[in-house]
Amino acid sequence: MADDSASLSGQLAATTLHDAVSSSDVAKAEFSDRVPIRSIVSRPDGGVGLAGHRVRIGGWVKTGRKADKDAFAFLELNDGSCPANLQVIVDASVSDLSPLVPTGTCIAVDGVLKLPPSGTKQKVELRVEKVVHVGPVDPAKYPLPKTRLTLEFLRDFVHLRPRTNTISAVARIRNALAYATHTFFQKHGFLYVHTPIITTSDCEGAGEMFQVTTLISEADKLEKDLIKNPPPSAADIEAAQLLVKEKGEIVAQLKSAKAKKEDINASVAELKKEKENLSKLEERSKLKPGIPKKDGKIDYGLDFFARQAFLTVSGQLQVESYACCLSSVYTFGPTFRAEHSHTSRHLAEFWMVEPEIAFAELKDDMNCAEAYVRFLCQWLLDNCLDDMEFMADKFDKTCIERLRMVASTPFERISYTEAVELLEEAVKGGRKFENKVEWGIDLASEHERYLTEVKFQKPVIVYNYPKDIKAFYMRLNDDSKTVAAMDVLVPKVGELIGGSQREERYDVIQQRIKDMELPIEPYEWYLDLRRYGTVKHCGFGLGFERMLLFATGIENIRDVIPFPRYPGRADL
Amino acid sequence: MADDSASLSGQLAATTLHDAVSSSDVAKAEFSDRVPIRSIVSRPDGGVGLAGHRVRIGGWVKTGRKADKDAFAFLELNDGSCPANLQVIVDASVSDLSPLVPTGTCIAVDGVLKLPPSGTKQKVELRVEKVVHVGPVDPAKYPLPKTRLTLEFLRDFVHLRPRTNTISAVARIRNALAYATHTFFQKHGFLYVHTPIITTSDCEGAGEMFQVTTLISEADKLEKDLIKNPPPSAADIEAAQLLVKEKGEIVAQLKSAKAKKEDINASVAELKKEKENLSKLEERSKLKPGIPKKDGKIDYGLDFFARQAFLTVSGQLQVESYACCLSSVYTFGPTFRAEHSHTSRHLAEFWMVEPEIAFAELKDDMNCAEAYVRFLCQWLLDNCLDDMEFMADKFDKTCIERLRMVASTPFERISYTEAVELLEEAVKGGRKFENKVEWGIDLASEHERYLTEVKFQKPVIVYNYPKDIKAFYMRLNDDSKTVAAMDVLVPKVGELIGGSQREERYDVIQQRIKDMELPIEPYEWYLDLRRYGTVKHCGFGLGFERMLLFATGIENIRDVIPFPRYPGRADL
Repeated sequence: MADDSASLSGQLAATTLHDAVSSSDVAKAEFSDRVPIRSIVSRPDGGVGLAGHRVRIGGWVKTGRKADKDAFAFLELNDGSCPANLQVIVDASVSDLSPLVPTGTCIAVDGVLKLPPSGTKQKVELRVEKVVHVGPVDPAKYPLPKTRLTLEFLRDFVHLRPRTNTISAVARIRNALAYATHTFFQKHGFLYVHTPIITTSDCEGAGEMFQVTTLISEADKLEKDLIKNPPPSAADIEAAQLLVKEKGEIVAQLKSAKAKKEDINASVAELKKEKENLSKLEERSKLKPGIPKKDGKIDYGLDFFARQAFLTVSGQLQVESYACCLSSVYTFGPTFRAEHSHTSRHLAEFWMVEPEIAFAELKDDMNCAEAYVRFLCQWLLDNCLDDMEFMADKFDKTCIERLRMVASTPFERISYTEAVELLEEAVKGGRKFENKVEWGIDLASEHERYLTEVKFQKPVIVYNYPKDIKAFYMRLNDDSKTVAAMDVLVPKVGELIGGSQREERYDVIQQRIKDMELPIEPYEWYLDLRRYGTVKHCGFGLGFERMLLFATGIENIRDVIPFPRYPGRADL
Repeated sequence: MADDSASLSGQLAATTLHDAVSSSDVAKAEFSDRVPIRSIVSRPDGGVGLAGHRVRIGGWVKTGRKADKDAFAFLELNDGSCPANLQVIVDASVSDLSPLVPTGTCIAVDGVLKLPPSGTKQKVELRVEKVVHVGPVDPAKYPLPKTRLTLEFLRDFVHLRPRTNTISAVARIRNALAYATHTFFQKHGFLYVHTPIITTSDCEGAGEMFQVTTLISEADKLEKDLIKNPPPSAADIEAAQLLVKEKGEIVAQLKSAKAKKEDINASVAELKKEKENLSKLEERSKLKPGIPKKDGKIDYGLDFFARQAFLTVSGQLQVESYACCLSSVYTFGPTFRAEHSHTSRHLAEFWMVEPEIAFAELKDDMNCAEAYVRFLCQWLLDNCLDDMEFMADKFDKTCIERLRMVASTPFERISYTEAVELLEEAVKGGRKFENKVEWGIDLASEHERYLTEVKFQKPVIVYNYPKDIKAFYMRLNDDSKTVAAMDVLVPKVGELIGGSQREERYDVIQQRIKDMELPIEPYEWYLDLRRYGTVKHCGFGLGFERMLLFATGIENIRDVIPFPRYPGRADL
């Protein structure tokens, strides 16, 4: 594949390595003078062909031990470029060995690649000639000792946990899926659009949204200021009023006495000064600590955006405005839910991929979703097999098999009505579900997983859902009972993608908004897209962390995002 | 170039087009049955070789007119895939022409590509055989008439403005720069890390940060609830207490009377119920409207994250934790400033690209920044020349020249001290600056622009700034006066990139935090990166919208982001 990032980076790194041997030009190529371990151990020959080459390597010690009566040290070194370590051997004559062996120590070394004695597992190892950097670790204090740590324990150390094999593998898989996402959509002519994070379209109900505000910090500032400089008292203001009165009288006297122009001007200037002082005092006397209110309600007119603002729950509505002129677009960014969910499947901050296609209908949407998911799976097989093998070994024996199956198998497509019939059949056949099965229900996770894991044992797209359980913007089908929605269900996580054809008919969508008792005003801009040059269009959203759970087999969503946010927790 | 997205997408679209002629398999390839206009007009022959081919085209009418006594209509159609329109000719026998001609109308049509009469400017045009969709426009109401509209006017219509030539060209250039960014870093082995948007590290001072909270909406909810169901009165509670007392006495009586076990149990159950009711009432009587307080301050223990939370101002500190184990990483995401800046260069929400490289020093940082900026410029020349030509024509005659110059010219590199000397020389030579020039000042925009636009007439990297004007995390140089910081200055916008080598020495950085009178506690996690396995590392930040201003020559930053946020304004 021409744009296979990992192999490109591999090639580049290999070139760098070659240069390292033949010239001192390395730094420029890599923006560092080290050679990534990946470019050695990920070669088809495992690095054997590089024996005899002199390289600089940097990384962190996974395990280190002194051997042969402290004559030398064996270090397993990892630099994050791949899951594999490079075995590094340091002779006691080269460096003091004790600071090098603790787990977590950072070293940069110059050395020569050598073939190890036969019978050892590594294909190539590094004999160190010079230690150029040591970032030491006091093992008594290091929070991540060599012993196996639970993922739950590691959540207390989000700044250090990427140093573990698991979290670094997840980081590489996440990177691969992100770049695969951009590559897929760019290849198909989609334009990446940055939809806003701060939004004033509170379409999903403010209750589940985070509010973004400067009112509290400004109230804090004012409160501190008022303590430092108390507001004027009534007496202060009275005194100032008296001064204004006196100065006014002086002006009047001078004028009626036809005094000199200079004298009148001078007294007018004094009057003006006192008036200004009074109005400043009056202004300040109105200041009240606390969040500003108007008619008993918070006065959002004084907030940063002069109105209430929230963190987005989806970029869909906004990206539609770009689809309705640029035709094929997508957004990929963070989204937010202020739900008090303490489950292993929910985060307060998570990433979503949301393409939107104009001149397209539901079947196009399904084609796009299927092609995208299969592309992601194939990409991981092509670019991250080493990390996937680690995952298969430690977390989920079937994860590679699952990727292969999805990459190579056309998805099953069934209507919601067919799905309900299949579930009813299953119930008749003795299958127990906690949630009742009947036409009109929203499919529960157990239903979705039965369809994809048991019934079809492959991804399933369910389409044409009852309109009453779906959003107002989904296109009403001719039966007037269902809407052109579709969900992609996959083994392991259930719903991975939710999408729909959007209602492009002005009259129909307006009626749907009314029927669902939503206010029209906030959607006027959205209705404009139907008022002026409307177009059939559709799109979907893929929960990026769900895709990671699907790919890696990790159980808790908090472990597949670098800095998880959930109720009571937002470290760093 | 193998991963040239635009030409890839062009190839793909061309394939699609070919298929459209020979089969009905188009929909699957493109997730739509239309052929993008780009794949016709952007061919080297301008589409001439496609004459005779039957295609479906969709798009929005830029200008339309009836001709030859209403016998047919000429429509200039644009679908956002490229700046060029396709001329479409509809015969009155095919369709009612009046609904087709208003600017903004959306149509999808089937037709045959034809060579136009010689002497016309287009290379190929479409003769329509069938109109398959019309999304009409009432010209009397359409907010974006054909007349030329100012960018300022368009800011009131962020949902419609991408339908204009300028904003759609900016969108394509922005997309190209975003994908170029990912491509550049992936090619060089950097891993994309999603740093958090919601943060509890308020390192830059809370005053400039947006607060993220659910306290206000929860207080609102409570207030409404208390109005609906007023809290219990003292009398209610007294009554409930009395009931508990009575039930307690009954239990005591029954027990002392050695009543039947069932009777005792029943009365105990009643007592329990009344006790529960009482505790509920007492709980409810404590509820107070308003934001919860504790010791006179807002009780953030009750906020969603159990502490005060903000929108991030930079992902740098967090991404460093990934660099210190994965070696080469970058983040690319939204960042926020709650500054009341009403300038043409500031947004409250903007995107930043922030790479971070381990085992690297300041020169590596400069090499990376230079290579990245030059890559971006070359990418636009290779992939967006049509849009750039539009920009050169409408906004900035020199913008293409500027890209060529930057792509092909090594950047000048001078120390801060040299920069000040050059500025002092300029002053001696008669150059006037508003801001005084002397060693120790922070360079003002006028100084930066003099250096890059007048003195060197190319990009300039200024490095080794006085420590007193830079952040605590920048590495102290051996002179103890300067830090290893660097800024990339470019013509047109001045500072495009700011970066530094990070202080990796635990003792030094701890002292710097103290010297700058910052609290240590919030940085303990950041210090951990130096405590355990520290490594030399560096990084920089590129303001993505600044890069767009530089590339396009657009004057106001509000016009190069799809949904601009600034004081008083956050539409949609």
